[in-house]
Amino acid sequence: MENQTPAAPAPLFAPLFGRVALIGIGLIGSSLARVMRQGGLAGHIAVAARTQKTLDTAKSLGLADSITLDPAAAAKDADLVVICAPMSAYAAIAKAIAPALKPGAIVSDVGSVKSIVARDVGPHLPPGVHLVPGHPIAGTEHSGPEAGFAELFQGRWCILTPPAGTEWTAVERVADLWRRAGSTIEIMDAAHHDRVLAITSHLPHLIAYTIVDTAAQLERDVQGEVIKFSASGFRDFTRIAASDPVMWRDVFLTNRDAVLDILQRFNEDLTALQRAIRNGDGKMLEETFTRTRAIRKSVIDAKQA
Amino acid sequence: MENQTPAAPAPLFAPLFGRVALIGIGLIGSSLARVMRQGGLAGHIAVAARTQKTLDTAKSLGLADSITLDPAAAAKDADLVVICAPMSAYAAIAKAIAPALKPGAIVSDVGSVKSIVARDVGPHLPPGVHLVPGHPIAGTEHSGPEAGFAELFQGRWCILTPPAGTEWTAVERVADLWRRAGSTIEIMDAAHHDRVLAITSHLPHLIAYTIVDTAAQLERDVQGEVIKFSASGFRDFTRIAASDPVMWRDVFLTNRDAVLDILQRFNEDLTALQRAIRNGDGKMLEETFTRTRAIRKSVIDAKQA
Repeated sequence: MENQTPAAPAPLFAPLFGRVALIGIGLIGSSLARVMRQGGLAGHIAVAARTQKTLDTAKSLGLADSITLDPAAAAKDADLVVICAPMSAYAAIAKAIAPALKPGAIVSDVGSVKSIVARDVGPHLPPGVHLVPGHPIAGTEHSGPEAGFAELFQGRWCILTPPAGTEWTAVERVADLWRRAGSTIEIMDAAHHDRVLAITSHLPHLIAYTIVDTAAQLERDVQGEVIKFSASGFRDFTRIAASDPVMWRDVFLTNRDAVLDILQRFNEDLTALQRAIRNGDGKMLEETFTRTRAIRKSVIDAKQA
Repeated sequence: MENQTPAAPAPLFAPLFGRVALIGIGLIGSSLARVMRQGGLAGHIAVAARTQKTLDTAKSLGLADSITLDPAAAAKDADLVVICAPMSAYAAIAKAIAPALKPGAIVSDVGSVKSIVARDVGPHLPPGVHLVPGHPIAGTEHSGPEAGFAELFQGRWCILTPPAGTEWTAVERVADLWRRAGSTIEIMDAAHHDRVLAITSHLPHLIAYTIVDTAAQLERDVQGEVIKFSASGFRDFTRIAASDPVMWRDVFLTNRDAVLDILQRFNEDLTALQRAIRNGDGKMLEETFTRTRAIRKSVIDAKQA
């Protein structure tokens, strides 16, 4: 009798959503599934993925009540559909699930670029279905359903970008889900989101990918030493540059204009520093490096450090 | 009686060095002083600094047996002199301490660029004094004597770059000090060190300074949001870009050629990615982002992650 597991306590409240469909079950999708499991937030979790292997993993991790290779089958009768797949698949997924959606269903996503959702998903949805695009500002350099964990969203921001005219109750229900995951909600315009994230996230990732790739192209003996002494700064970039290649390919393809714009400014600033180094302009270097310290202080003051 | 502190145990061995002079007592110098204090490695620690305030802080932290504004006074009769000051001050410090150095004394440093030591310090030293340049690959974004801690060097590399012809026993004594600090010693040619560190450390810092400065120049309202959502990648760069401005100014001024060379390669790689984004070349982006993942794996395998 000692080893018998006590029955799980009954949830204090009814689930937030009856049936939730997750289209894609990678790092973010599986973390969200864990949140819903722990909080008893979904009556049924239906998971769709592109491979049987991923589905079997999700099932064995206890993240899915039902699994299917067909997004429409997962979305059928769902109260909430969350697209957790690469953004290049959004249009095809929206097209596939549209006929299966019931009136009043909410469609959301977790992608890093938000203008694309209104563009690629919105037009396919039948009337009476609510579109509430979302972006949890959270992640690690690991991918796949095994990489997820329920605490991923705790203390982080989740940005929602409902198109103008979206029904407020639908936005509130999605916001409530993310609040239960431990996140703080921010609502903004999709285009504005994409400009801000181009700076805070997309450019840093592009730069990290570049610097690590520059090292990857060095002669093999130097490369060994670069790895050996990577703790001197390079290491932090390798972590960022280990993020999911398909997801990041899609980020740069879908947020092209905002990324190219901020990249242009970055290039100008880098060229100015390059010239200062070449000319031995210590004053300019020191002034720049002092200015950047103030930004760090702001990050710490904002409790984001 | 219960609250009485037992007397500190007598050191098991005689100190490694009788008198040690630290010229400069910032993050690295004060951490080294703490290591020597904890291990009983120095019979007397003489500290020189440019301001009385720094000296008083070092004294009140228990890091100095004697303090002075005059580097020569600290170096007099020292068995080991470690220059822990910005590299732009090396020539002046070497000139100042040279007449005070006793025969057999060892002069070392902790700077991030190593060719400069043979160039700016070496020519001033009298015959019979040993020059053993050193670079502990360790640090934080904090500066000053209060920022140091004895564990800073544990499990880290310390690179020594003794000029050809240096007496082996002198190199061994400096190596021994860093081993007691918990570091692993690597001996290499100064020019080679500067090329490797240009990639692993100097370029990453330059890039981080640039990206944070790009953000610092944005309109104030966008800047607030950049800080708010900095956890999405930008935050890691602000930490690096908060490093000591004077130290890093000197790094770029003294390792100019190696930095400009690797920066040129970086710029080429960034331009190629920029073109791929502009042309919507998803295949090229995905291939690059996959290649960089392998480098991360090497860093983890080398236990540097």
